[in-house]
Amino acid sequence: MASPIQLKNQARDEECLRDHYARVRRQTAVLIENLSEEDCLVQSMPDASPIKWHLAHTSWFFETFVLPAIDNDYSVFDSAYGYMFNSYYNTVGSMHPRPARGLLTRPSLKTVVAYRTHVDDHIDALLASDDGHDLGPTREVLLLGLHHEQQHQELILTDIKHAFSCNPTYPAYDPARLSARSTRTREAIERRWIARSESISQIGHRDDGFAFDNESPRHRQVVEAYEISSRPSTVGEYLAFMNDGGYRRPELWLSDGWAVVNERDWRAPQYWVDREGEWMHFTLGGLTQPRETEPITHLSYYEADAFARWSEARLPTEAEWELVADEAEITGNFVESRRYHPIESKETPRHASAIFGDVWEWTASPYRPYPGYIAPPGALGEYNGKFMSSQMVLRGGSCATPQSHVRATYRNFFPPDARWQFSGVRLARDANT
Amino acid sequence: MASPIQLKNQARDEECLRDHYARVRRQTAVLIENLSEEDCLVQSMPDASPIKWHLAHTSWFFETFVLPAIDNDYSVFDSAYGYMFNSYYNTVGSMHPRPARGLLTRPSLKTVVAYRTHVDDHIDALLASDDGHDLGPTREVLLLGLHHEQQHQELILTDIKHAFSCNPTYPAYDPARLSARSTRTREAIERRWIARSESISQIGHRDDGFAFDNESPRHRQVVEAYEISSRPSTVGEYLAFMNDGGYRRPELWLSDGWAVVNERDWRAPQYWVDREGEWMHFTLGGLTQPRETEPITHLSYYEADAFARWSEARLPTEAEWELVADEAEITGNFVESRRYHPIESKETPRHASAIFGDVWEWTASPYRPYPGYIAPPGALGEYNGKFMSSQMVLRGGSCATPQSHVRATYRNFFPPDARWQFSGVRLARDANT
Amino acid sequence: MASPIQLKNQARDEECLRDHYARVRRQTAVLIENLSEEDCLVQSMPDASPIKWHLAHTSWFFETFVLPAIDNDYSVFDSAYGYMFNSYYNTVGSMHPRPARGLLTRPSLKTVVAYRTHVDDHIDALLASDDGHDLGPTREVLLLGLHHEQQHQELILTDIKHAFSCNPTYPAYDPARLSARSTRTREAIERRWIARSESISQIGHRDDGFAFDNESPRHRQVVEAYEISSRPSTVGEYLAFMNDGGYRRPELWLSDGWAVVNERDWRAPQYWVDREGEWMHFTLGGLTQPRETEPITHLSYYEADAFARWSEARLPTEAEWELVADEAEITGNFVESRRYHPIESKETPRHASAIFGDVWEWTASPYRPYPGYIAPPGALGEYNGKFMSSQMVLRGGSCATPQSHVRATYRNFFPPDARWQFSGVRLARDANT
Amino acid sequence: MASPIQLKNQARDEECLRDHYARVRRQTAVLIENLSEEDCLVQSMPDASPIKWHLAHTSWFFETFVLPAIDNDYSVFDSAYGYMFNSYYNTVGSMHPRPARGLLTRPSLKTVVAYRTHVDDHIDALLASDDGHDLGPTREVLLLGLHHEQQHQELILTDIKHAFSCNPTYPAYDPARLSARSTRTREAIERRWIARSESISQIGHRDDGFAFDNESPRHRQVVEAYEISSRPSTVGEYLAFMNDGGYRRPELWLSDGWAVVNERDWRAPQYWVDREGEWMHFTLGGLTQPRETEPITHLSYYEADAFARWSEARLPTEAEWELVADEAEITGNFVESRRYHPIESKETPRHASAIFGDVWEWTASPYRPYPGYIAPPGALGEYNGKFMSSQMVLRGGSCATPQSHVRATYRNFFPPDARWQFSGVRLARDANT
Repeated sequence: MASPIQLKNQARDEECLRDHYARVRRQTAVLIENLSEEDCLVQSMPDASPIKWHLAHTSWFFETFVLPAIDNDYSVFDSAYGYMFNSYYNTVGSMHPRPARGLLTRPSLKTVVAYRTHVDDHIDALLASDDGHDLGPTREVLLLGLHHEQQHQELILTDIKHAFSCNPTYPAYDPARLSARSTRTREAIERRWIARSESISQIGHRDDGFAFDNESPRHRQVVEAYEISSRPSTVGEYLAFMNDGGYRRPELWLSDGWAVVNERDWRAPQYWVDREGEWMHFTLGGLTQPRETEPITHLSYYEADAFARWSEARLPTEAEWELVADEAEITGNFVESRRYHPIESKETPRHASAIFGDVWEWTASPYRPYPGYIAPPGALGEYNGKFMSSQMVLRGGSCATPQSHVRATYRNFFPPDARWQFSGVRLARDANT
Repeated sequence: MASPIQLKNQARDEECLRDHYARVRRQTAVLIENLSEEDCLVQSMPDASPIKWHLAHTSWFFETFVLPAIDNDYSVFDSAYGYMFNSYYNTVGSMHPRPARGLLTRPSLKTVVAYRTHVDDHIDALLASDDGHDLGPTREVLLLGLHHEQQHQELILTDIKHAFSCNPTYPAYDPARLSARSTRTREAIERRWIARSESISQIGHRDDGFAFDNESPRHRQVVEAYEISSRPSTVGEYLAFMNDGGYRRPELWLSDGWAVVNERDWRAPQYWVDREGEWMHFTLGGLTQPRETEPITHLSYYEADAFARWSEARLPTEAEWELVADEAEITGNFVESRRYHPIESKETPRHASAIFGDVWEWTASPYRPYPGYIAPPGALGEYNGKFMSSQMVLRGGSCATPQSHVRATYRNFFPPDARWQFSGVRLARDANT
Repeated sequence: MASPIQLKNQARDEECLRDHYARVRRQTAVLIENLSEEDCLVQSMPDASPIKWHLAHTSWFFETFVLPAIDNDYSVFDSAYGYMFNSYYNTVGSMHPRPARGLLTRPSLKTVVAYRTHVDDHIDALLASDDGHDLGPTREVLLLGLHHEQQHQELILTDIKHAFSCNPTYPAYDPARLSARSTRTREAIERRWIARSESISQIGHRDDGFAFDNESPRHRQVVEAYEISSRPSTVGEYLAFMNDGGYRRPELWLSDGWAVVNERDWRAPQYWVDREGEWMHFTLGGLTQPRETEPITHLSYYEADAFARWSEARLPTEAEWELVADEAEITGNFVESRRYHPIESKETPRHASAIFGDVWEWTASPYRPYPGYIAPPGALGEYNGKFMSSQMVLRGGSCATPQSHVRATYRNFFPPDARWQFSGVRLARDANT
Repeated sequence: MASPIQLKNQARDEECLRDHYARVRRQTAVLIENLSEEDCLVQSMPDASPIKWHLAHTSWFFETFVLPAIDNDYSVFDSAYGYMFNSYYNTVGSMHPRPARGLLTRPSLKTVVAYRTHVDDHIDALLASDDGHDLGPTREVLLLGLHHEQQHQELILTDIKHAFSCNPTYPAYDPARLSARSTRTREAIERRWIARSESISQIGHRDDGFAFDNESPRHRQVVEAYEISSRPSTVGEYLAFMNDGGYRRPELWLSDGWAVVNERDWRAPQYWVDREGEWMHFTLGGLTQPRETEPITHLSYYEADAFARWSEARLPTEAEWELVADEAEITGNFVESRRYHPIESKETPRHASAIFGDVWEWTASPYRPYPGYIAPPGALGEYNGKFMSSQMVLRGGSCATPQSHVRATYRNFFPPDARWQFSGVRLARDANT
C-alpha cells in the first residue's frame, strides 16, 4: 500500500498536471532568490554543477524530450544549448565537458531564466486544454521531467553549499535558518533497536505512483533476522568515534577508505572546520557549532562504514532498510527545522513518528539493477542504468530533498568517497549478536 | 556435496600435511625456473608485484603467522623483512609502499631463495613428528598459508606476463607452450543455454574442505528463472563485437566504463597488439595469432558487460553462476592446453564435461560479504573483508589457477577496470526473453 | 635619451599625479564596460585570474602599500580582503590559493567596484592638496601601483580572451573590432634585415622616467655583429612553417618543446580552431579568418624558437633587441587597428616607422637579473626578483599593452610554454651567415 | 693555455687511441663490479636510468655512429637494440620510452656485457693497424663516444645511489669507502674571498684539446667587479641555514622553488634522513653522520640560491666562475677521499691548491648557447643544443666525475629542482657590497 503522501502526490498529478508543473518549476526559482549571478555561475568541483547550469539543463530536458514529441512547430530557443546543457545523453549528441560547465559565462543567468520562461510557456500551452491527457506516452516523460527537476533542486542546495564552503568568509545561503533552528533537536532521541525476524520479502516499488525505473521490478529477497536503529546516528555519537581515534585506526576501515582518509587528510566529516582546536560546522545557514543531538551528516560511505564497525554494528542492506521504512510514516522534520522547498512543504502534513527523511543514509548495498530490470529504450534509457557500477545506495532523504522524493523505495546513489550530499548513517546488526 | 577434486584435496591435506606443504612450495619454485634474476625484480605497474616479492612475501606469511605461534625459539631470518614483505597487514606493522616493491634490488633473489629454504626447514621440522596434528589452531593458519601461496602462484604468472608485455621484443615465458597448444580448441564448441527455473537456493561453501572466509556462511538466496551459457564466449564472438563498433558505441557501456575506454584508448582486450592492421595476441608462449575458437580473455568487467549488452544478454550473478557450477565437473582443459602447475596437475583427473575452469568469468555481482559474514579476529581478519568495496566478483579459474582453487564457491575479485588477469565472460539472460 | 612618449608620460606624471591616477583607474573601468558579472568571475585556467579579482587586487595594492603609509586613520574596507586579494606577497601575510580565485562569488562585482571607489576616494583626498609631492617615498609606491594597474589591464584582456575561448559559442569581447580592422595590414610589409656591427653596448633603463626594478641597472654587454628583422614574422610565414610539417619534425624543436607539442597535441598557435579543415582564429572581436599579412601571435617560446630554426635564423637576445629598439620610434599600430585603452591612446601620437609594439616578441634570453640588480627591501622586493627562474623574456608590447608600457627597456616574462598572451616572433641571425 | 691535465689527456689520446678506448671502457666495467644483475636493472625514477641501460646505450653509441661509418661489413649485434637503447636521437629513429627503461629485463646483463665485448672487438680491430689515424672525421666521433661514456660513468654512480636510497636497508655501493674517508676534511678550510676587478674577458674553450660543442665558441663577456669564495660552502654552513629556518622562510626563495619546497616537503638536502631527530646522510659508502667540514652536496638550484640569499651573497655567473677556475689547478681531492674511477686516477697528479672538482657548483646562469654557437649537423647535433631551455649550468666536477671531465670550461646542466647529482654551492658577491 502506498503511503498517504504518495497517494496525495499521485492524486495531485492526475488532478492537475498543469498546476503541478507550474509549482515544481516555481519551486526551483524560489531556491535561487538569494543568489547572485556570480553565485549561479561557480563550479567548485567537477562533481558539482553551476546553479545556472542546473536551471538550463532541467529546461533542456523538457525542450529535448517533451516538446518535439508533441509540437511539430516547436523550434529550439538556441541551437547551441543542445551541446551546452546536455548532461550525459550520448544518444542525443555530444556534450560540453562536465568539469568545464563553470566556464559558461554566456548565456547569462538572465538569458537562462528567459529560456526557462520560453519552455514553460510552451508546456503550459500544451497543458491548458486537456491538462495533458492527450499527450500519450509523452505525459510520462513530462512527469519524469518534473521528478528530474526536483532531483536538481536538491543538487542546487548541495552544490551551492560546496561552493560557499570554498569562500574564506563562509557566506550563508539562508542566514535566517540558524535562528529558526528547531528546538526539537536540543534533546537527544534515545535509540531503540527495531527487530525483524527472517523472511522472504517483497522489495521494490508497487507501481502505485511515480517511481524511477531503478526501483522496479518489485521482487523477492531472503532477509535474515536483523535489528536496525530507530534513528540515524548523531553528532555526539560520531564525536565519540572521532575522539576514540576513529580516523587514525586502519583496522576500522575498508582498504580503499583508509587510502582516501590518508590521501585527503580527513579528520572529520566534510564542512567541519577546525577553529583553533574547536570544531565548527558550515551549514546553509552559515558557520555554527555542531549540536550533539543532531544527526551526523556529510559522511562518505567509508566513514559511515568505519563508524558502524567501531560501533560493533554494520550498515543495513537496502532490503533491511526498506522493510522497516515501508511500514513507517515520514515527516521530514529535519534537524535544521524545515525543508528547503517552501512551496511544496506548505501543503505537506507532518507526523511525530518519523523514522527517515532527515538525512540520506548509506546502505551496505552497491547500486545494481534489481532482478529483471530493463533500461527503457532510447535516450531515457541512459537515465539510471548506466551508472550501476562503483556506487553505493543511500536511502531516506534530507532537508534538501523535495518531500515527494522521500519514499521507502527511493534509491539514491553516490560513489563511496562522496560526502557533499547530506549523507549520514543508521546502524544495523545481525539478530542475536 | 563436494566435488571429487575437493574431497581429494581435503584428503590429501589430512593424510599428509608435510608432503602437501612441500609440494605447494616446490610448485612455486618450478614456476620461476626459466626466469632470470632481472625478470624476478621487475614491477611493471603498481597493481603487479615483482616475482621476487611474491617469493619472499609468501614465506614471510609463514614466518609471521605460523612459526612464532608454535616455536618459541624461532628468530626471524632478517629483521628488515617484516617491513619489506608485509603486503597490507596493518595489524602487524607498517610496510614498504606497494608501488616501490620493484626497487628492492636487495635482498637478492638468491637470498630470498635462501629465506624460503630457511622457513621451509623450520616448518618441516614442526611437521616431521606428528604431521602438524599437535599444532592446534595454527594448523588452520598453516593451511591458509598454503592456499595463500597458491594465490600468489597465479599472480606470478599474470604479473610476469604483464612485465614481458612491456618489452618490445615480447619474450615468451614458456616458449614450448604454443607448439603444444591443444587441438581441442581448433573446433568451435557450440553454445547451449542451460535453463534454471526460479528457486530459493543455498549459496556458499558447505564446510566440507578448505575455503576462504569470504565463501561463508552458506545462505539462502532468491534466484529468478534464468538461462546461462554452457561455455565462456569466444575470441570469434568478441571479434564480431569489435567489428560491429563495440569500442565506439557509448550506448553499450556503463558510464564509468565508457570514460575508461576513452581515457586509455582501448580498442581491444589487453595484450592484443595491432601489427599493421592485423591483431596479434601476446601470450605466455609469445606473440601469436588469436584463435577464434578459444575463450576470449583479458577483458575488464566493463568490456565483459558491454559485450554482454551487445549480445542482448547480461552477465550472470554470483548465485546464478554457482548454482550451475555446483552441479558440474571441472576439468580445466584450458585453451592453451595445460595448466601452469605441473607438479599438481600430474595427479589431477580430467573430464570431458567441463563447464568452468578455463577462464575467470566476470559476474554481475559486486564483491560484498555474505549475510552473517564475520571477519576473523586479528591480522588474518585483514585477509579478505577489507577489500569488499568497489570490486566485482569473478568465478571459475584459469590456466594460471592451481587446480585446487577451481571450485564452485570460490570468489575472486578485481576492480572493474582490471584486465591483466585471465578474465573472460560467460553470458546469461532472464528466462523467456 | 628617452623616447618622446616616455618624456611625455613622465611630464604628465609630474605635472598632475591626481589626474594621472584618475585616468589610469578609469581606464580599467572602461575595459570591463561590456562584461557581465559572470564574465568577471570566471577563471578559465590557473594561470589566468578572474576580472573581478584583477579589479580588487589592484585596489588592494593601494590599500596595502600606499594608504597605511600616509594616512594613520585609514581603516581597511573589509578585513577579509587582505587574504583574498593578496597575489603573492608572503611578506604581508598568507593568501587565497591562486587556482581557487574563480570560486570567490562573494564579494560581488558591485561590492568590488565600491571597494575601488572607496580606495580612489582616499587616494584622491591625499592628492588633492599638493598633488602628492608631500608623500615622500610613498609617492614612488603610488606610481608603481599605477604601473601595476596597467599590467593588470593587459591581463584583463588576455584572461577574458582565454575564458571566452572556452565557450563553444566563442563570444566577442569587442564585436565592433573586426569591422574596424585596419586596412594597413591588408598588404604585406616586406622584411628588411637591420644589421649591427659588434659593440660593447649599454643595456637597461636610463633612469629618465618610470621603470620597473628589473630594467636596471644599466650596464655594458658585449654584442657580436648581428642582423635583426625589421618587423615581426607574419601569419603567412608561419603558415608556411605549419604546411612544411613544422609541428611534426622533432629536429626543429627544443627537447622540452617537443614533449609539450606531443602531450598537448599542438598543431597551430593558441586560439586557432580547425573548422572542417579550415583554420579560423579566435580574437577579441570573435572568430575570424587569419589574415596572412598580420603578425603571427599566441605562440609559445617553443613555437617561436622552432619557427626561427626552420627559418634558418634564431631569436634575438634581449640586448640585440634593445639596441635596435632604442633607436626606433614606437607606434603601436597594432594589427587589429587600435589599442584597447581608449582613454590613454586618445592622447598618444602615432608614427609611421614603428618597429615594435604590435606583438610581444620572444627573445632568446632567460629572465635573469641584470648585473648588480638588488631587489627592493620589504614586500615590494617580491615584485619581480623572485620570478627570475624558468621564464623567458619578451620585448615589445601588444594591442593589449597600455601605450606607456611600450618602451625599449621593458622586460616582460613568461614560461616557455605560455601562449595566451599576444606573443609572437621576430627573427635574428648572426652577421655574415 | 690548457691545464696540464688537459694536455696530458690530449697527448694520451693522440699517442694511443686504442689504449685510451680500452681504458675508458674498462673503467665502466670496474664501476659495476660490486653490483648484481638486479642492481643493474632497477630504475628508481624517470630521471635516472638502469645501469644496464647505461652499459648498452654507450655501446649503442659506437655501434650507431662509429662502426657503420668505417666498416661496411658491420652488422648490428641485435636489431632490436636500435629502438631499446637509443636515448633521444630522433634523427636515427624512434625509441623506447625513458620512464620504461627499467622494465627491460631482457636482454640480460650478461647479454649486454657480451654486446659491449662485441662492439669493443670491432672497434679494437679498427684501431689495431693505424691507431685510428685513418678514420677521418669518424675519429672525432669515436673520441666523442668516449667522453660520452665517461658522462655515463658519472650517471652510473648517481643513479645507483638514488636506487639504493629507496631501499629501507640503505645498501652501500662501496662499503670500504667510509673507513677510508679523508682525514683532510676533519678540519674546516677557512673561506677567503677572491676578488676580481671589472673586465672584458674571454670565456669558453680554447680548442686546445677535447671539448663539447656547448663550450664553444670562445667569446668576450663584460664581467663587473666581483668576489668569489675560495671554496664551496660546507655542511656546517648549510646546517646554520637550516637551523635558522631556511626551509620555512619564503622571502629567501625563488617563487618556483618555494612551491617545490612545499609540494615535496623538503626540509634538508636529498639523502638526508631524519633518524629520531638526528640527521644522517646516505652516501655511496652507506648511511653516516654528516661531517660539518665537508662541502654540502645534493642541493637543488633552488636550495643553493636560497642559501646564497640567506648568506647575503649570490651564486656566481658562469663567466665569474670560469675566470677564476681558469687560473686554478685542479685536484679533485673530494671529501670522500678519492674518486670513483681507479683506473684513470692512478695516473692523475694531485695538487694542494685545488679550488674546484669536489662538487658540482650551481651557477646563476641558465643553460644557453654561447654567441655564435652552431649545433653540429645530423644526429650528433642533438647531443647538446636541444636541451638549452629550463636548465641551469653547474661548473666544477665531483667525486663521481672522471678526472678528464674536470675542466674550467665544462658546462654541466640540470633543471633547477634536480638534486640527485653531487651538486653544491659556491658563494659570490658584487665587489664592495
